[in-house]
Amino acid sequence: MTDPIRSLDDLAPGMAWDLGTLTLSHEEVVAFASKYDPQYFHLDPEAAKESIFGELVASGLHTLSAVFGRVMGSGLLAQVSLGGNQIDTKWPAPLRPGEEIGIRTEVVELRPSRSGRPLGVAKLKHTGTRLADGVVVIEAVGTHFLKR
Amino acid sequence: MTDPIRSLDDLAPGMAWDLGTLTLSHEEVVAFASKYDPQYFHLDPEAAKESIFGELVASGLHTLSAVFGRVMGSGLLAQVSLGGNQIDTKWPAPLRPGEEIGIRTEVVELRPSRSGRPLGVAKLKHTGTRLADGVVVIEAVGTHFLKR
Repeated sequence: MTDPIRSLDDLAPGMAWDLGTLTLSHEEVVAFASKYDPQYFHLDPEAAKESIFGELVASGLHTLSAVFGRVMGSGLLAQVSLGGNQIDTKWPAPLRPGEEIGIRTEVVELRPSRSGRPLGVAKLKHTGTRLADGVVVIEAVGTHFLKR
Repeated sequence: MTDPIRSLDDLAPGMAWDLGTLTLSHEEVVAFASKYDPQYFHLDPEAAKESIFGELVASGLHTLSAVFGRVMGSGLLAQVSLGGNQIDTKWPAPLRPGEEIGIRTEVVELRPSRSGRPLGVAKLKHTGTRLADGVVVIEAVGTHFLKR
C-alpha cells in the first residue's frame, strides 16, 4: 500500500505518486463493454478489424474505472477523501487487452475552503501510460474533496 | 429500440432523445464500487452515515458507466459511432441505490471533418435526472466520432 495522505495541507502542486501497473484481459474488456459500452469494437475481435482501431480495444470507461479503482484501492486517499463531483477524461490512444499500463496520480491544483471548514478541493490528474512505448492512454483530472 | 441516427449530417444542436430510465440496486452499487471505487461511502451503509452524503451512494463512475451503457445499448448511435476520445463528467448530486433516473442525450456541437473524410465530431451531452424530484445527478459531455 502507498503511504496515505493525511491532510490536504500536506499536498503541493506537482507532487505525484506511482501506483503500480495494471492490465485488462480480453475477458474483462468484453464483460465490461457488454454491460456499459456495447459497441462492436469492444466486443467482437473479428468485427473490430473493420473499425478505426483495426482490432478490439477496451472501452474508455473501463480504462477509467480500472485506473480509478487502482487509485482508490492504493489507499493513497483513504484517510482524506470525502468524495468528488467532476472528472474530465481524455483517451489520447486506445488500450488493447493484455497491454500493461503504469498508473500515476499528480496534484494539479489545490483550493482549501475559505469558510474555515476542514476540507478543500484538490484537482488530481490520474494517468495511465503504456509501458511498452510510453504512450499515455488515459488522462483523467478529478475534482476531489479532501479533508484538512 | 430508439430509431438509429444514420449520419452526422442528420443532426443539429439541440436535438435530443429520451432513452428510458434506470435504477442501480444496492447490490450493483456495492459490486461496482468494490472493483472500481472502493470508498466506504459506496460500500458500507453503516459507515456511510458518517460521510458527507449521510448514507450509501453510488460511485459516480458507476452512474457514468450505467448511463453510457444505456445510450450505447439503445442503438441510437449504433450505425454511426466510430469511437470517442474525451468525456467531461459532472455529478451535481449523489445517486442513491433504488432511485430511478431518466436518461437523455442531446446534441451540443457538431464539427464535420474539413478534410472530406466521411466523419465528424459530435459533442453529445448525456444526462441522468432523478424522476422523484427532477434533480440532475450526472451530466457527461462526450466527444464522439460519427460517420457521415
